[in-house]
Amino acid sequence: MKALLGSGGFRTEERRAIYVQAMQRHFGDIERILFIPWALHDHDRYVNLMIENGLHAGYRLEGIHTFDDPCDAIERCDGIYIGGGNTFRLTADLHRTGVMSTIRKRVREGLPYMGVSAGTNVACPTMQTTNDMPITMPDSFETLGLVPFQVNAHYFNGQTMVQLGEELIEHCGETRDDRIREFHEMNDTTVVGLWEGGFLDIQDESIELLGSAARIFNKGTDPVDVTSGDDLSSLINSSS
Amino acid sequence: MKALLGSGGFRTEERRAIYVQAMQRHFGDIERILFIPWALHDHDRYVNLMIENGLHAGYRLEGIHTFDDPCDAIERCDGIYIGGGNTFRLTADLHRTGVMSTIRKRVREGLPYMGVSAGTNVACPTMQTTNDMPITMPDSFETLGLVPFQVNAHYFNGQTMVQLGEELIEHCGETRDDRIREFHEMNDTTVVGLWEGGFLDIQDESIELLGSAARIFNKGTDPVDVTSGDDLSSLINSSS
Repeated sequence: MKALLGSGGFRTEERRAIYVQAMQRHFGDIERILFIPWALHDHDRYVNLMIENGLHAGYRLEGIHTFDDPCDAIERCDGIYIGGGNTFRLTADLHRTGVMSTIRKRVREGLPYMGVSAGTNVACPTMQTTNDMPITMPDSFETLGLVPFQVNAHYFNGQTMVQLGEELIEHCGETRDDRIREFHEMNDTTVVGLWEGGFLDIQDESIELLGSAARIFNKGTDPVDVTSGDDLSSLINSSS
Repeated sequence: MKALLGSGGFRTEERRAIYVQAMQRHFGDIERILFIPWALHDHDRYVNLMIENGLHAGYRLEGIHTFDDPCDAIERCDGIYIGGGNTFRLTADLHRTGVMSTIRKRVREGLPYMGVSAGTNVACPTMQTTNDMPITMPDSFETLGLVPFQVNAHYFNGQTMVQLGEELIEHCGETRDDRIREFHEMNDTTVVGLWEGGFLDIQDESIELLGSAARIFNKGTDPVDVTSGDDLSSLINSSS
């Protein structure tokens, strides 16, 4: 299994360089990648923006919305990439179109999978560690389950600071750590809080953290901070 | 209909003073308020924290979890208050216990309703403008519909700033305005972005904004900023 799971926030030159390098190493010398833009509203615009911003890394991104039969497109592609946006909308479309089992099967057979933000959320057993607003109700929160743990993309810790006129004030809403603790009040699965700019590079039983730090949350124990370059392979076997 | 809908973030002395005054004016000279603590995991602790932090405003808060029959408790109470926490958990419990129609009926008959944060979300037609993590799947996103518009609690605008070591860096995730725009890509209802410390004080057909600014989002038009003391009664009649 080859999966490259990105957090998002690839907006600085340094982060984009890591992104392009990781994406090229991941997909290798194929030419075309099937891109799933369902997390955003305007699919054509999304594909164009990916190219304009250099986030295609030189590959030809083919939007799944341009094919008559999405399952057939997945069966025939050489690589698949699910982009970010709203995870509820993406998950609803993954269920409605019936592509979930085809993606799962092909990735388990070796098709390289890349996900960013919402596309990383749906690689997990459920989409329940998303940060997004529930703008639509999917049939279920269950997602691809390519990995046995959850990722919280765009992770950061501490209190949010908000610009109010000239001053920065502390926002009182739940911190990300509060939210993940609440997740563990009702669920058991390990959660990886992945800072922006970071990737989990998964090759069969091995996982390397690239481009950012991460914090790993196991239910009932203190979270553990890990750093870029760390081997996180234990997540594959130890996740409950 | 008497409803007091708070955003949350009542952590400064100034905000708490507004909170206590608004709550006392809202509930008047009743003694006991039925408190619904379902948005947090530990119900007893929640009621105790409310009292410790002075957020009971002198009233006797009776947790609904201490009654054998929650619908009967709602039928008999003189005031009802739904506290904040995780809106998915709260909504799941509101559906599971079957109290939704009893609350709706009594509030429409004149029972004073107070909600803060998640308790404000569930006063809206749906919980779909929550900021919370989907830690559990409710039967439906439909909620009390005491008002015909949506509230986004803990609202702020602009990009989030995150503390990373000594420096503040810009977080790249969606802004709150982005998220509400995404909501309007799939839904039509007006959304009130209510800053922390603020309340909507609703008396039948009249709505006053108290304690903070707010931003009102209508689908397809530019949002409008309003300020504490403004009359927002048009929300009752103009919401789609």
